[in-house]
Amino acid sequence: MPKVEVCFSPALYDYRLLKSGFDAVVTDVFRASTSICAALHYGIEAVIPVAGLEEAREYRQSGYKVACERGGSVLDFADLGNSPSDFFREDLKGAKVVFSTTNGTKVIQLAAGNSQKVYVGALVNLNALFACLKQRKNDILILCAGWKNLFNLEDTIFSGALAHLLIDHAGYETECDSAKAAIDLWKPARHDVSGYLRKASHRIRLKHLLTEEDYLYSTGVDSCRVVPVLKNGELIAESHNY
Amino acid sequence: MPKVEVCFSPALYDYRLLKSGFDAVVTDVFRASTSICAALHYGIEAVIPVAGLEEAREYRQSGYKVACERGGSVLDFADLGNSPSDFFREDLKGAKVVFSTTNGTKVIQLAAGNSQKVYVGALVNLNALFACLKQRKNDILILCAGWKNLFNLEDTIFSGALAHLLIDHAGYETECDSAKAAIDLWKPARHDVSGYLRKASHRIRLKHLLTEEDYLYSTGVDSCRVVPVLKNGELIAESHNY
Repeated sequence: MPKVEVCFSPALYDYRLLKSGFDAVVTDVFRASTSICAALHYGIEAVIPVAGLEEAREYRQSGYKVACERGGSVLDFADLGNSPSDFFREDLKGAKVVFSTTNGTKVIQLAAGNSQKVYVGALVNLNALFACLKQRKNDILILCAGWKNLFNLEDTIFSGALAHLLIDHAGYETECDSAKAAIDLWKPARHDVSGYLRKASHRIRLKHLLTEEDYLYSTGVDSCRVVPVLKNGELIAESHNY
Repeated sequence: MPKVEVCFSPALYDYRLLKSGFDAVVTDVFRASTSICAALHYGIEAVIPVAGLEEAREYRQSGYKVACERGGSVLDFADLGNSPSDFFREDLKGAKVVFSTTNGTKVIQLAAGNSQKVYVGALVNLNALFACLKQRKNDILILCAGWKNLFNLEDTIFSGALAHLLIDHAGYETECDSAKAAIDLWKPARHDVSGYLRKASHRIRLKHLLTEEDYLYSTGVDSCRVVPVLKNGELIAESHNY
């Protein structure tokens, strides 16, 4: 029986039960993974995650579009910010966009080291991702980006939603208390996810960055039928064979 | 307003929000913290936590009683094992007992470095501990011992129970998603804690060590009116001024 495990923080990754050969699902619901799903769903060809500002600036000089903000402001050399709604632009369709996210890039690299495939998951692509994973039936490690290495509610709720689908509807099992807890948090929250996550500390901290429109988009389930997968350092849409 | 924070693993301790001056509550429901509460409740004068077997053996040679087991067997030089029921012995009343627990000792030392006081908490002393903390009104960090640095359900349920009491009945607040999640797990579980924790992975792993009697004792709320506090390397009962 394939296994699913949830890792609540990059700082707990070294202690995981699944050691290698798994597929990793990386999540950062506020905002990177939601924005990446939105971008690919809206027709962007690839999202290239980069950690540093310098790297983002170099890409810009080579002609790439760059999504980059710090403290809620789009940086002067960049074309757009990091919010999901920043990607809803006709002129970006078919383009490769560089996405500057220090924490997100670190987490993707961490997961890539031991896994067969790295997917990006968020509430917005929950069932598209589930349909894809269900076909592969490989072990799954869900890695939460967290906030400064701390547990956060929004990534946990997504993890619980996905683990619940895998266990109840795809024959997965878990030996991991994090997955069990995440599922128990998801089950009552699923009836009103946007209501439940209003208490998330990261939403409160991000208030000046996360507009109400972005918040409702990020906590809405299944608005995207797209599964971002890492290939040669780029996140592209997994082909629809599910 | 005093704050409460929950830390799900020793590996997350460095990333906590409360930096110093807090009171720490260390918990390891299966079994160390429950056994320590049981010991002091039953009349043992002090429990001395030690990390290594060698240190435990040296204490034994100086005349101390020693609680020490590995893999479920009491070691040849020791007087008793590490289960709560091992401490229910008339001949131990008034004695100081050395308790060998590698992980427990590490967690206590970790918490002691930055805190004003270190308490030991478990479901069995939930309300006695709450009554004591409510009087002090200091910031509280609840540090879960976890299992091999991983999140576990039983320490989380206890953390949620204590955080819930502090916030709803003692004017505490929290900015910590771990505390919010722990409370949301506790609230439905509290009506049948022993039933809920049967799925805890650590209980399943510990099956050969944790008898049904010990399991029911560890998941029973408020059987002990004792609050272990660390003083000069020994855990003693906090005097009853609450």
